[in-house]
Formats: sequence, C-alpha cells, structure tokens
Amino acid sequence: MKKFINDVENVENEMLEGIVDAHPDYVKRLEGLDVLVRADKKEGKVALVSGGGSGHEPAHGGFVGRGMLDAAVAGAVYTSPTPDQVYEAIKAVDAGNGVLLVIKNYTGDVMNFEMAAEMAEGDGIEVASVVTNDDVAVQDSLYTTGRRGVAGTIFVHKIAGAKAEAGAPLADVKAVAEKVIANVRTMGVAIKPSTVPAAGKPGFELAEDEMEIGIGIHGEPGTHREALRPANEIVDHLLEKILADIDYSGSEVAVMVNGGGATPAMELYILNKRVHDVLTEKGIKIAKTFVGNYMTSIDMAGASISLLKLDDEMKELLNAPADTIALTQF
Amino acid sequence: MKKFINDVENVENEMLEGIVDAHPDYVKRLEGLDVLVRADKKEGKVALVSGGGSGHEPAHGGFVGRGMLDAAVAGAVYTSPTPDQVYEAIKAVDAGNGVLLVIKNYTGDVMNFEMAAEMAEGDGIEVASVVTNDDVAVQDSLYTTGRRGVAGTIFVHKIAGAKAEAGAPLADVKAVAEKVIANVRTMGVAIKPSTVPAAGKPGFELAEDEMEIGIGIHGEPGTHREALRPANEIVDHLLEKILADIDYSGSEVAVMVNGGGATPAMELYILNKRVHDVLTEKGIKIAKTFVGNYMTSIDMAGASISLLKLDDEMKELLNAPADTIALTQF
Repeated sequence: MKKFINDVENVENEMLEGIVDAHPDYVKRLEGLDVLVRADKKEGKVALVSGGGSGHEPAHGGFVGRGMLDAAVAGAVYTSPTPDQVYEAIKAVDAGNGVLLVIKNYTGDVMNFEMAAEMAEGDGIEVASVVTNDDVAVQDSLYTTGRRGVAGTIFVHKIAGAKAEAGAPLADVKAVAEKVIANVRTMGVAIKPSTVPAAGKPGFELAEDEMEIGIGIHGEPGTHREALRPANEIVDHLLEKILADIDYSGSEVAVMVNGGGATPAMELYILNKRVHDVLTEKGIKIAKTFVGNYMTSIDMAGASISLLKLDDEMKELLNAPADTIALTQF
Repeated sequence: MKKFINDVENVENEMLEGIVDAHPDYVKRLEGLDVLVRADKKEGKVALVSGGGSGHEPAHGGFVGRGMLDAAVAGAVYTSPTPDQVYEAIKAVDAGNGVLLVIKNYTGDVMNFEMAAEMAEGDGIEVASVVTNDDVAVQDSLYTTGRRGVAGTIFVHKIAGAKAEAGAPLADVKAVAEKVIANVRTMGVAIKPSTVPAAGKPGFELAEDEMEIGIGIHGEPGTHREALRPANEIVDHLLEKILADIDYSGSEVAVMVNGGGATPAMELYILNKRVHDVLTEKGIKIAKTFVGNYMTSIDMAGASISLLKLDDEMKELLNAPADTIALTQF
C-alpha cells in the first residue's frame, strides 16, 4: 500500500487536525471528538449535522460553514460514526431552533444517527432527520437496505443549508431537504478500487480492462462489470439509468460530475462534455454544473453523475451564497 | 491504460469543451483555439496570460477569472502551447494597458511564450513576462535550464492578478510577480507516475515500495529514489530543502500543499498537519493555507509543498477577492 500516512490507526485524527490547522477560520474540532463545527457558530437558526465514515473527503467536513453544514461527524474510514459522537455534535450546534440530521442511507449511519437523535431529544433538543438515497444503481446493497445515499447528498447540504441560513423553521428546512432527495438521482462507475489504510489492500479487484458499473462509494458492487468503454458510452449508460428513474423532460437541472478521489480533472471534464451534450439534445436545461471531488472514495478512480431536477425554490437556494472550505462559493 | 476518455488525440479539446460547458459564466473559448479567456473581459486593466501543457488541471484554465488570469493557453498534454496560440490569447485579452505573461520555467514554454510576446509587440501591444522557477529540487532538469516552475506559480497568478485587478500599471504588476517568484519555493514527491493518454503507459516506473523525491510536474526525475517513508518524514525532508533555500525565519508565510491529481484529500491533510507543526515549532507564522489539487500531473499520486514568504503587499493581494472556477474565493 502506497499512501502518504504515518499510522493506519491514526489517519482520521491526523486528517482532522490537518483540516483545522489549514482552515481555523472555517472549522474547529470539538475537544476529544471527531466532529468539525463551524468556527463561527450562528445563533438563531436551525443547525444542520451530517457525516458518516471518513474517506469521502471533502465530504463532509469540507461543507461545514456559512450556508451549508453546522457540524460534520467523521467515523473511521468507511465506518459509521458512533451515536455518542453524533449526539455531541447535535448538542454543540443546537442554537435552540432545532437540528436537522442529513444521513446517507447506509444501515449503520441511519441506526447511529437516529440513536443520537433520540439521546438529544431526551435532552429536550428538537431533532429531525432526512435520509438521502439518490443512487439509482441498485436496491438493497452491501451495508444498505433500499437505495444508497451518495453524491447527491451534497445538494441536500447546500439547499437545506441555505434554507436554514435564511432563518426558516425546522419543518421547512426538513421539507426542502426532502424535496431535494425526491428530485436527485446519481449513478457511478469505477475503474480502480480504493484502499482502506487499515486494510492495506484494495477493497476488490478489477481486471486491467474492466470497470464496475453502478458502484457504491465504499466500493460496494454495482449492477455489473464489463470491459472499459469510451467515456461517452459510459456517460450514456449512466444517464439512461438516471433519466429512466424520474421524469426530467422539459425541466431545469443541476449537474454534478463527481470524482472518486483519484480521477483527474481532465477526465471529469471529458465526462461533463458528454453529459452536457446529451442533456442539451434532450431539451433538459442545465442551470448549474459542478465538476470535481465532492463525495470521494479515498483513492478510487471513478466518477458519478448526479442530476437534480430543480424548481424555483431549490434553484434560488442552490445559488445562495455559501462559504465553506471545499467550496467557498458553492 | 484505464481512463475516462474517448480518443487520445482529442482529450485536450474535449476537456476544454467540458470546462466551458460547465462554467460559461466564468470562461469562454477563443474560436478554433485552445485558449480560455474570461467570460467578462475587463477593460482598463493589465491582462494576465499564463498556460502551458495540459494535464496540470485546474492549472491554468481554472484560474481564469476576476482577480487572477485573463487567459490560459493550453498545449497538448505535457507539451508547450505554440506561439500562435499564445499570440492570439494576448491579442484577445489586451485592453490597451499591456499584458503580463506568467511562464513556468520549461524551455519550450519560455521559447514559445517569448516568441508570442515578440509577435504581439510587433502589433504595438505592450508585453512583459516573468518566469517562475520555484522548484528547489534540482538545477537543470529534463526540459529545463535552471529551476523548474511548478505549483508556486499559482501564487503568482493570484497576487499579480489582484494587483492588475486593482488597476496597477504593467510595471507594477510585473514587479509584484517578480517579488512572489523571489519568495516562493516548492518541492514535490511522487509515489505513482502519471500516464499521458497518447503514450498509453506510465511515464516511468516505481517499485512497489519506492517514491521519487523532488519530482517535476511532468514526472521528470528529482533528487533520488528511496523506500517510501512515513508522511511526517517526507514532509520534514521537503521542508528542510525549502527552508534551506531562503531565510524564512521570523517571517509570515502562505502554505500550499498541492496534490498530484490522484492523491486523496485525506493524505494531503495529513501532510499539512506536519507542515503546520514543523513551521509552528520553527516560529514561522502561517497566514493562509491551501490544500488541494492546484497544479497536478494528470493522475500522478504525489504532492508538493510550497512556501511563500509574505510581506504586507503580498499578503493583502493574496487575501483580495478572486472569482475563478477552481477557487471562487481563492
């Protein structure tokens, strides 16, 4: 295993320290916990808490800041954070207006975040939660009952975060988060697996000419493996699945072409060109495009495409100012 | 070779189209050329032009926009752009106040940019140029006489770009660019080589336990190869070389921990933690830190560390607003 690390047992901790060292004006770490919170706690608003296993950077700590998340809870690599860590995050960011948990649909995450919610409610904190499940590839996967929550989650952070920043009550912030979840779909592909530091070897193997279609963000199996094809054919296949899932015709969308962590920008932009061409040909209007590493899988060479079908409210909130490490102006 | 591409002969073109498709509000492409210019040409200021071979994304197109570059010229992967492309870029962005070329020190780039400068001067356009050479690893390398210009170039874009945006005359913009060049130093390391699409195989080979210390951004040999060491020891070695080159003692610096393209954020932040700890221990104050992919080498797994010794002028310009694709607020 070739990585810039010191100690496989300590990668999460050193990473979190490295983030705070780099960006003390954006985030601080809760003492003794793997939780990043906004450096400037904002009072008088609903607080948003998200998180999950580490290895998906910049998700989720990179999205902590004005107009997005108030806290990100980091589990060990590819492992759900414990309920007590989430509970401490909720307590730290609650400003008396309630807390929305944005949970990716993985069994461990759902269980632990909901346990934390119950603990916080026992303290009198109002907590609501939403579960993202944007991955159209498979129903019921390794670690997940139902569909997996993947890169589309970032749109929930952004749009619900903007709603909360504007002072909306918890019920409205939750409602817009659910609207995003109902309208965002994602599908991914990988050509090289990721290596969890503590495991020391890739999570699976792919032959020199193979790709895994519909892969999950922890390398969970997708729909099938096949020989690597030209980028355009891969995009066509992913978009076909996404567009078959809800009716995007005549609508306006936000696009995310997300990198796996080891995919160069050159390739992501080549993929984006085809996404743009296909959507344009179908009469689907693109309001905004994001290309880059948003929800990665450590060092996986792969990509996912997300489409969010917008309405006026979501579009306005997507365009509202935000200020975070990963995207200072999302 | 496993890449998301369609045609090795057309990767640069498709990438540039993908960038413009994604970000038409930031950049447009000069008709028939591999040149990206600001979507909103700003009149009444000195224009900045940079560029070089493709494969270093987001450099340089990602830094075109308010407060940074006015044009980025893209050659084929790892190949200098031709003089006529640079010449067209100069003509397109000149607003009558002169043009500064920011050139990385590679023999081809220097020759072609300077030839373009002469062509533009023949048209009566005032052109100045600076050559970055921040890489402390080696003198006289493959493709280069003297030191190579690498990730520190981004600081030149940002600081000279802010000076130009503020309306300074060409001589002053050039002077501050030269001040940045005099005060920025970089050194890099790689654990996995990059693959040029048209070559179809990695540019060199590294054994399973080996790293290349002092590597250039095209995979040029560095100072030596040795067995992979813990991240902290690698940082200590790179910093030792950088800190020996100019006197940073008691000064305030900007730090860049730059990824090679396939290096996950987790590892870059682990490296940054050590950079922060070492500088803090030495009494060097960190004014601002950048961690991410700024000047990549396609899909190289590697990283570089840059230190810019600041004065009040450079610090103010570094903190001035900018709005580009890669860093909407640098």
